[in-house]
Amino acid sequence: MLSEFDLIKQYFVRPATAGTHRAALGIGDDCALLAPAPGMQTAISSDMLVEGRHFFAGEDARRLGHKSLAVNLSDLAAMGARPVGFTLALALPAAERDWLAGFAGGLFALADAHGCELVGGDTTRGPLNICITIFGEVAPGHALRRDAARPGDDIWVSGTLGDARLGLAALRQELVLEDAALDDAAQRLYLPTPRVALGMLLAEGRLARAAIDISDGLVGDLGHILERSGVGATLDIDALPAGPVLARQALAVRRAFTAAGGDDYELCFTAAPERREAIVQASAACGTAVTRVGRIEAQAGLRLVDGGGAPLALALAGFDHFG
Amino acid sequence: MLSEFDLIKQYFVRPATAGTHRAALGIGDDCALLAPAPGMQTAISSDMLVEGRHFFAGEDARRLGHKSLAVNLSDLAAMGARPVGFTLALALPAAERDWLAGFAGGLFALADAHGCELVGGDTTRGPLNICITIFGEVAPGHALRRDAARPGDDIWVSGTLGDARLGLAALRQELVLEDAALDDAAQRLYLPTPRVALGMLLAEGRLARAAIDISDGLVGDLGHILERSGVGATLDIDALPAGPVLARQALAVRRAFTAAGGDDYELCFTAAPERREAIVQASAACGTAVTRVGRIEAQAGLRLVDGGGAPLALALAGFDHFG
Repeated sequence: MLSEFDLIKQYFVRPATAGTHRAALGIGDDCALLAPAPGMQTAISSDMLVEGRHFFAGEDARRLGHKSLAVNLSDLAAMGARPVGFTLALALPAAERDWLAGFAGGLFALADAHGCELVGGDTTRGPLNICITIFGEVAPGHALRRDAARPGDDIWVSGTLGDARLGLAALRQELVLEDAALDDAAQRLYLPTPRVALGMLLAEGRLARAAIDISDGLVGDLGHILERSGVGATLDIDALPAGPVLARQALAVRRAFTAAGGDDYELCFTAAPERREAIVQASAACGTAVTRVGRIEAQAGLRLVDGGGAPLALALAGFDHFG
Repeated sequence: MLSEFDLIKQYFVRPATAGTHRAALGIGDDCALLAPAPGMQTAISSDMLVEGRHFFAGEDARRLGHKSLAVNLSDLAAMGARPVGFTLALALPAAERDWLAGFAGGLFALADAHGCELVGGDTTRGPLNICITIFGEVAPGHALRRDAARPGDDIWVSGTLGDARLGLAALRQELVLEDAALDDAAQRLYLPTPRVALGMLLAEGRLARAAIDISDGLVGDLGHILERSGVGATLDIDALPAGPVLARQALAVRRAFTAAGGDDYELCFTAAPERREAIVQASAACGTAVTRVGRIEAQAGLRLVDGGGAPLALALAGFDHFG
């Protein structure tokens, strides 16, 4: 029988790698101790993933470990913060060794890729629930806030949108994909790539003004920037970069899923037009594509237009857990 | 219908009170931003509370709000850290206004008493689960770590022990308490008092060496100090301060519940004998009683003795969620 303490020791405590970590004290005490870098602000975000809501029952443990951390890293990316560490609180129906090994494997592979250290947490028995709280650092005044968009700013998105939603639609049998296409789309759903390096470059160089990560669909998430910044926008729906599988689907599906798909974990950011060249350079430097998709305007509200500039009335909304 | 965003806005976003808070950016962005006090370390702890495991189904929302934060504040207290802020991740079966108002009321009353600010979090639908991650600050080298006990140290506990376990026993009908006694004991179970001020005084004055908060029972939690410090101890079981209701129970019940009750949220700490007078002064200064209950020794293992010093063999163990 695996005890709570053995579970933590065997799967989540790792040998200290000198020089690579910020924690003055890690797992095993009442608290972890972090020594903040002098003069830097600490960016903090918390996400809770629930079985049947954020992932299917029986989801592969390794993918789940990856995704649980990825959604939090994506929040740091949207502030332009450098990842430092995270806590993991885990409610499990049972302590199964294979599941734990897979989950920890997926979690730590992504954590190591971003130099982000597990510093503490909690484990308990209960319906499967994964809560990660992540810490990053960012220089004062450099964070990419939702309330910083200004009329005249370009609106940009990173990567491609909609494939995760397409994969979900296929898994729910709302539409049919060929096996290879389903594999590609499901990959985006299960193994999102947080845009940490792009976010850090945008913040360090003061290239972007406002940013948000696209988790509930672009239209809904851009709406948060508009509301917090007290501005409006026009969005060119046919400029939205579709994922490789989605690009081959019908126009209506492509428009709906790029504009309001969800689970993209790309960045949406606004920037002054003078920054276009520097943003393209930053994009090349970190290997993450960026696309201009619209314009911030003083007039409140979000106006959708097609590739020819004609207004479109689409019923699109962000995801609401209690809606 | 209460949306996720309305829920957060109505129950968890509060007007900023200038000058009292550390957050440069609070709820409503991808991350919160904290500005750490120069030169201080950040203490971090995360606790997850699950319905049916950490509290009964149908538990009063206000008490639950209090307890959810109290167990985290208790972890800061055990490090000697000053509370700064916390994140709240909440999975709810439904968004019920009365429940939310009660929960937020209990949570914020305790948070305000400790100057600890809600800076962010997450809400989702799911089986009731409350995950709080708390942040405090402590001067480098002052934190009360589990690995710092030394042979010759006194062992101390704060407050009184065992009433929470007694209340639980009565609620589970393992024994019978009169109504007034049950109310008193249940109060300790439902509304624990984190010993934040005592922990801070012990750390600031370098009065204590090792400390832990007593959440799984004294014997089990002291065992973590012994293991991490590579030492043993003798514990005088009849010196353990019983709670007011427990003090009137039979000797065997008193011994078992003070030594291994659980849910006490008192501090157990070790200190050099030269510190006795200063510790008693600190105790008086913060109004939290402290009692010497044993001695750290070089010989490994925990030895229980009665009031006359005779060895006792009691089968006592800390709580294990997967045991």
